[in-house]
Amino acid sequence: MKESVIANVTIIPVGTAHPSLSHYIAACFKIVKQAQGISYQLTAMGTTIQGPLERVLELVKEIHEVPFTQGAQRVFTAISIDDRRDKAITIEGKVQAVKQLAD
Amino acid sequence: MKESVIANVTIIPVGTAHPSLSHYIAACFKIVKQAQGISYQLTAMGTTIQGPLERVLELVKEIHEVPFTQGAQRVFTAISIDDRRDKAITIEGKVQAVKQLAD
Amino acid sequence: MKESVIANVTIIPVGTAHPSLSHYIAACFKIVKQAQGISYQLTAMGTTIQGPLERVLELVKEIHEVPFTQGAQRVFTAISIDDRRDKAITIEGKVQAVKQLAD
Amino acid sequence: MKESVIANVTIIPVGTAHPSLSHYIAACFKIVKQAQGISYQLTAMGTTIQGPLERVLELVKEIHEVPFTQGAQRVFTAISIDDRRDKAITIEGKVQAVKQLAD
Repeated sequence: MKESVIANVTIIPVGTAHPSLSHYIAACFKIVKQAQGISYQLTAMGTTIQGPLERVLELVKEIHEVPFTQGAQRVFTAISIDDRRDKAITIEGKVQAVKQLAD
Repeated sequence: MKESVIANVTIIPVGTAHPSLSHYIAACFKIVKQAQGISYQLTAMGTTIQGPLERVLELVKEIHEVPFTQGAQRVFTAISIDDRRDKAITIEGKVQAVKQLAD
Repeated sequence: MKESVIANVTIIPVGTAHPSLSHYIAACFKIVKQAQGISYQLTAMGTTIQGPLERVLELVKEIHEVPFTQGAQRVFTAISIDDRRDKAITIEGKVQAVKQLAD
Repeated sequence: MKESVIANVTIIPVGTAHPSLSHYIAACFKIVKQAQGISYQLTAMGTTIQGPLERVLELVKEIHEVPFTQGAQRVFTAISIDDRRDKAITIEGKVQAVKQLAD
């Protein structure tokens, strides 16, 4: 996947009545799963997505909106983007590269 | 500023041979200063910007590109977005609200 | 301040029923202000603190606990640490270095 | 695992000569794998760890030091901590809860 970035996205609705956030996160994740041109990996602390930078930011904008449609009045969204242009990277490739070196 | 978000953006070029990053950050900050419809505050750990979400993400995309034009081959960009829709917030207003309560 | 790091700390209580978080943040900030050996700067998206790494992490642990004492049942805390060892850095010095280059 | 937190840790050495960071990350990950009382999951954007808060922060401090021993002069470390006290959470449990709701 040429000219793509890998990003982690964490969506935190604030001022919800209950500490559980899983139904908000699941609604966001449904959209990630259906997104065209995006690879993804759900993790315990966010969702890792891969695709062209513009597409990734569009998707972030889209899923950031989801908790508001579910009643939240405030949302914190944290995104970290890894954009490497000297070689192609993939979600799985990054993990394997580290695992092999750490064995 | 109705329907605006406050975001912190931290740009980290990687593999740049020297630990100083200030000339990369300054080049990004020049673009922030000239951006239409954006309030900003430079901090020690990033740049805080305020504006409509779409405008903020466009600006992030623009400044994320800057270190590549200066020779970097890999850039990590971290963004945290605070989007509150029950009341208007500003960069200065958030700081003052906490300072007054902490006095 | 030799062998000190600069860190940004953002505390996000979750499930608090109301979107305002300022009284939680103010209670955390009171502790930062009284902390020995710590420089600080309150920003719109967190609190920037400077001190020896061990002292900074102790302080993070202390303020992360505060919202629980105020009734929160879940807290997200985000910390980013900048640790530069080739030269001394300060909160104000980092900001000024960028501002001068961007003028 | 009672009274444990889940955290994501991302270590970014800066000013290294090459954009590849995998040998730094692998050296950190080796320490995580050997850490007592810590569950972990390597991801493309960091390492997710679980354990008591104090133990997690000790481990962060330890792995943050690693790139310096490998020659780096500056390291950015980002940590996000999810501390939920109304019910026990696990790395795998959080992922499964979201996956089931999103099916």
